[in-house]
Amino acid sequence: MRDVAIIGVGMTKFGKFLNKGLKDLGREALWLTLKDAGIKPQQLQFAYAANGLAGLITGQEGIRGQVILRDAGLGGIPIVNVENACASASTAFREAYMMIAGGFYDIGLAIGVEKLYCEDVSKSVRALAADSDIEISARFGLQFTAFYALALRKFMAQRALTKHHLAKVVVKNSYNGSLNPLAQYRRALTEEEVLSSRLIADPLTLYMCAPMGDGAAAAILCSADLALKLTDKPLVKVAASAMRSGQFHPPQEEHPSVVTLAAKEAYEKAGVGPEDINVTEVHDAMAPAELMIYEELGYGKGEEVGRMIEEGVTAISGKKPVNPSGGLASKGHPVGATGLAMISEIVWQLRGEAGARQVKNPRIGLIENAGGMVEGEAAACCVTILKK
Amino acid sequence: MRDVAIIGVGMTKFGKFLNKGLKDLGREALWLTLKDAGIKPQQLQFAYAANGLAGLITGQEGIRGQVILRDAGLGGIPIVNVENACASASTAFREAYMMIAGGFYDIGLAIGVEKLYCEDVSKSVRALAADSDIEISARFGLQFTAFYALALRKFMAQRALTKHHLAKVVVKNSYNGSLNPLAQYRRALTEEEVLSSRLIADPLTLYMCAPMGDGAAAAILCSADLALKLTDKPLVKVAASAMRSGQFHPPQEEHPSVVTLAAKEAYEKAGVGPEDINVTEVHDAMAPAELMIYEELGYGKGEEVGRMIEEGVTAISGKKPVNPSGGLASKGHPVGATGLAMISEIVWQLRGEAGARQVKNPRIGLIENAGGMVEGEAAACCVTILKK
Repeated sequence: MRDVAIIGVGMTKFGKFLNKGLKDLGREALWLTLKDAGIKPQQLQFAYAANGLAGLITGQEGIRGQVILRDAGLGGIPIVNVENACASASTAFREAYMMIAGGFYDIGLAIGVEKLYCEDVSKSVRALAADSDIEISARFGLQFTAFYALALRKFMAQRALTKHHLAKVVVKNSYNGSLNPLAQYRRALTEEEVLSSRLIADPLTLYMCAPMGDGAAAAILCSADLALKLTDKPLVKVAASAMRSGQFHPPQEEHPSVVTLAAKEAYEKAGVGPEDINVTEVHDAMAPAELMIYEELGYGKGEEVGRMIEEGVTAISGKKPVNPSGGLASKGHPVGATGLAMISEIVWQLRGEAGARQVKNPRIGLIENAGGMVEGEAAACCVTILKK
Repeated sequence: MRDVAIIGVGMTKFGKFLNKGLKDLGREALWLTLKDAGIKPQQLQFAYAANGLAGLITGQEGIRGQVILRDAGLGGIPIVNVENACASASTAFREAYMMIAGGFYDIGLAIGVEKLYCEDVSKSVRALAADSDIEISARFGLQFTAFYALALRKFMAQRALTKHHLAKVVVKNSYNGSLNPLAQYRRALTEEEVLSSRLIADPLTLYMCAPMGDGAAAAILCSADLALKLTDKPLVKVAASAMRSGQFHPPQEEHPSVVTLAAKEAYEKAGVGPEDINVTEVHDAMAPAELMIYEELGYGKGEEVGRMIEEGVTAISGKKPVNPSGGLASKGHPVGATGLAMISEIVWQLRGEAGARQVKNPRIGLIENAGGMVEGEAAACCVTILKK
């Protein structure tokens, strides 16, 4: 197994871009990433392209990566389209990582592109439901907000959490997002604003939920040996890339979640523990879910979770910063781009290039990106650990 | 790089199954394949799932593999959804092959499932157009039949081929299909029947074109070492798995096709040449395209191609049998399942289990599976070489 480095990352601003298509977004992310890596497109030996819902929103299926990358000037190399709902981009990253670690190729691209906004927003909402089992949950209207709401109510009861804890996550993340020029929303919200915003699915209010969004993000990976020749920037290596799908067991009280299992595998592969992680991006499609993920990643347990957010442990200036980018509710969540945007953030943090939201001298970063829902469990979860 | 073997293959009958869903088809293919391998589902360490068009036809997106495999009893392992139009299943196979060759896992599954038939066949036709660029070719109505027709007319003119040569491919393949109990159509057609069937896109007539179809196919791959412990069947190894996407160059007379490039890479990796291949399955979505592929694979050149089909060189009993399964026009072409059905056929041929359509004692087999269309080139082509 060879060491693999990330030599370039990039993302478009996330937001509502009715005048931009998949090709426009993909081209922008690709060229930003090539520029960051300082290489030419002809140097790329393969590409993995992630997209969640273009089939249902724009009508493009089957060869989304080829269509997007052709437009950006890339062809001839193997292009594989991968999909795992909201974890699509991390899945593309994982495949690219393995191609290089396994010695099949020396340098390649992972790119995620998503266009959720269209003229008819109800079409976008219906499309998002197709990331769960359309014959079961989607058919009886159990949207992702409801899934999260149910899980959070149980979690709140067990860990003595109040709605104030939930709101504090959004306060922290919206502040971080206000420092991120690429975020979809850049206003720091108060606890009162969060709690008085429209109720979506009790206990979730509007400002707790990730918005619709368009955007793209990418990373260029190569063997660590080659990276030394190609770039002078601080080398960011992939310490682990783990992935699991839901276990589909009958629900049990102590049944470990797919996030827990993926994190365990990543820690083992990287040879580190939760205490070693200096900066983290987690998949908070509904921001308060961040609290559940603290526990799943081993950052805190039981009632400690509430104290972590109360005491600012996970703020940018805290001991265990989480979601310095603003998280999904502030930064935005264009499904198939999200994982690579999270990876971009951690690379910037490790390189010390995160500007106003820079965490102090991080050496090891973790990205948790989950997607889809089958029988109340995430259908896929990728946990990536990066090391300076 | 470790040696990788295929220890189990399986496919459903291909056809029109309005009363079967994706889950039904997937479950059937998975369990046939597990039975063929003689292993339990719990032994699988990962899965790659291919599907082309469920999003547009059934509405299921994002986590198609998880939804299908959960229903069949598989969970917990990493499940990745891959897509490359008609080459989706071979792409899933390639990813699975690399995971084992690279030493990441020891045993895993590649499965392809497709349901093209629905109550509204015009919906299926529109969905198929989404395997080309929907902003360019699909928008002005250039369906795949037209793409193939244009390419074939040029090829016919350059290689002195007549419509009789085209029809003879269908005569050969429909005869082969008549011997295949899993084929969608099992009637051996005469040259006259083929030529007098309805004109679809000159020079293509109805019987030259692959039908709509539903079906699923799968393969279980493992390290060659492990295979020796798990199975007593003749060991079929993966000698090469190559993939390329369209080059997107400006058209040039002597520009090598993506099929040619993928084949060249596969021959090099396997250390064999076209002369060493004993049995072949090619992607003849419009059956006469087989003639073009003879040339792209290096089986014949120029006017020799016409003589090959006239003289029965590529018949089951010929020197260079091609499409013993019946090919896509007879066996059927459920997009996301096709590549793994082709791989299943070659495994059965190499094991000597192909019944009435068995080729005499083949030792090396080749599968060519192409998909999608960007700027008049296949968006993806996988060439796999298997060895007994």
